[in-house]
Amino acid sequence: MSQPPILVVTTGGTIDKQYFDALSEYQIAESVIEKLLKVSRVTHPFRVVELMRKDSLELTDEDRALVKATITAAPETHVVVTHGTDTMTETAKVLADIAGKTIVLTGALAPARFAESDAPFNLGMAFACCQAAQPGVWITMNGSVFDGLKVRKDRAAGKFSEI
Amino acid sequence: MSQPPILVVTTGGTIDKQYFDALSEYQIAESVIEKLLKVSRVTHPFRVVELMRKDSLELTDEDRALVKATITAAPETHVVVTHGTDTMTETAKVLADIAGKTIVLTGALAPARFAESDAPFNLGMAFACCQAAQPGVWITMNGSVFDGLKVRKDRAAGKFSEI
Amino acid sequence: MSQPPILVVTTGGTIDKQYFDALSEYQIAESVIEKLLKVSRVTHPFRVVELMRKDSLELTDEDRALVKATITAAPETHVVVTHGTDTMTETAKVLADIAGKTIVLTGALAPARFAESDAPFNLGMAFACCQAAQPGVWITMNGSVFDGLKVRKDRAAGKFSEI
Amino acid sequence: MSQPPILVVTTGGTIDKQYFDALSEYQIAESVIEKLLKVSRVTHPFRVVELMRKDSLELTDEDRALVKATITAAPETHVVVTHGTDTMTETAKVLADIAGKTIVLTGALAPARFAESDAPFNLGMAFACCQAAQPGVWITMNGSVFDGLKVRKDRAAGKFSEI
Repeated sequence: MSQPPILVVTTGGTIDKQYFDALSEYQIAESVIEKLLKVSRVTHPFRVVELMRKDSLELTDEDRALVKATITAAPETHVVVTHGTDTMTETAKVLADIAGKTIVLTGALAPARFAESDAPFNLGMAFACCQAAQPGVWITMNGSVFDGLKVRKDRAAGKFSEI
Repeated sequence: MSQPPILVVTTGGTIDKQYFDALSEYQIAESVIEKLLKVSRVTHPFRVVELMRKDSLELTDEDRALVKATITAAPETHVVVTHGTDTMTETAKVLADIAGKTIVLTGALAPARFAESDAPFNLGMAFACCQAAQPGVWITMNGSVFDGLKVRKDRAAGKFSEI
Repeated sequence: MSQPPILVVTTGGTIDKQYFDALSEYQIAESVIEKLLKVSRVTHPFRVVELMRKDSLELTDEDRALVKATITAAPETHVVVTHGTDTMTETAKVLADIAGKTIVLTGALAPARFAESDAPFNLGMAFACCQAAQPGVWITMNGSVFDGLKVRKDRAAGKFSEI
Repeated sequence: MSQPPILVVTTGGTIDKQYFDALSEYQIAESVIEKLLKVSRVTHPFRVVELMRKDSLELTDEDRALVKATITAAPETHVVVTHGTDTMTETAKVLADIAGKTIVLTGALAPARFAESDAPFNLGMAFACCQAAQPGVWITMNGSVFDGLKVRKDRAAGKFSEI
């Protein structure tokens, strides 16, 4: 397996959530994905496109069309999309008819800036999955590689499950 | 893709390295792999076998035979092995003739107990790779999925590269 | 200096802020102050009273009277109060007429659960200040020991300053 | 209490301990004390002098004389010394006859680079103690402010105790 360059498209979601003091409103500037990849000593070729910074409940059809167009137009055939968890499966459906690319959506249930977060593990899963899996759309959450069209978020249990 | 149970075999290495004060010698008891999987909110079925706690430079032929026998005898066909990085490729060679199992070796260049470590990302890669890749032996380090027989550790650069 | 027992009164504020996923609403149960003191290897005698869990903008006169009554009634003469930063100085004024006790208010500008937070440093300052300073009310934030009656939060700058 | 500038003298010890891979020997360049103070949002005026990087068991009489000379010659009257824990009390004795300065020694039982370390709490204690305590030599470890001449490290228990 050669080392194909990976495109990372960020759309926002809990993984990138920052803390704003009620009145003081500070903002941490450094991009969390770039930092995570550096801490994880990733030397694999990659390119990060910070496309939007939205809660996934606020994503519109136009937003999803933009994600799809960005991936379709990119030269990379291996793609990671960081995304809020609540509508991740809806975006998966939109991306499902992109042919010849391995696309993996992932996110986090706790912000990456927390000391204890699932973000680095999930991002690692996505990096491996987009290299090892067949073309199509996949979701990596809770330690599992899911077919992106056969998974749902179980909100009560706070985890993803097969359907 | 159903959710096949994963066997995690730990052999030691930098990923599990602990700090011992020169004279006081304290030891942190909690297993770092179990903690990492919990923090990463892994609900995928898995089983951890803490087989040995060795620097990989100290692993003997007998140790490698034991790792092989453990994996061969296990009911799981998807296997993650945490391992010191210096002789990870030697163990990969020994495991290469186990048929019908997807085996992924991973480790870390900085101890998992450090605030900034590649351990959670690498472990995430291994979890995804053993689910998504074909049977065989793989190594996940530095953001890449490597064929376990076509990779070496570049000690000067502190990273793994294809050969 | 003997080792006088310390009373820690928690009132809430950013230091204890937890993350709730918009729809899934998970809650981290473990108390952050107890954990911080354990990680910091504190063997000094202390007692934690979790009095309330409020944003400091929501604290009422009755709440402040309760904090005052709790400290007044306690046998300890060395007291740490964790508190939201926005109205910390108002509570300091209420506590100022408690005689014969060294009371230190502190908090955090970033939640203690973040990987990068001022919480452990600030709590350490408060522990030392309540042992080393004269009776009265003090605030420890941003690396400074402030007279609790001569300090204000500079919201624009996101820090405390002398007045 | 005005905001007197603080001199921070680093001598090494566990607090600054870095991890070196057995063969690859990487080194993390960024100074841990500066980073800790930044993460802790310290705006109090301070100056860091990285004087030496030694395990405290390797400190010689000449090293201690250099620490003393550095503090004596400095314009600051409030001083924090980060130091290995094993011979911290010996250095305290050497510094005890510096007149008119409040000097606080501190360190850590777990490296600051660990996710779970006593370093930020201890450094916070030292910052507060050197502002709030009388001139003299103090040690802040395990949540206590100790008279620097009346404390010992209990190696078996892994903590400091009064004598």
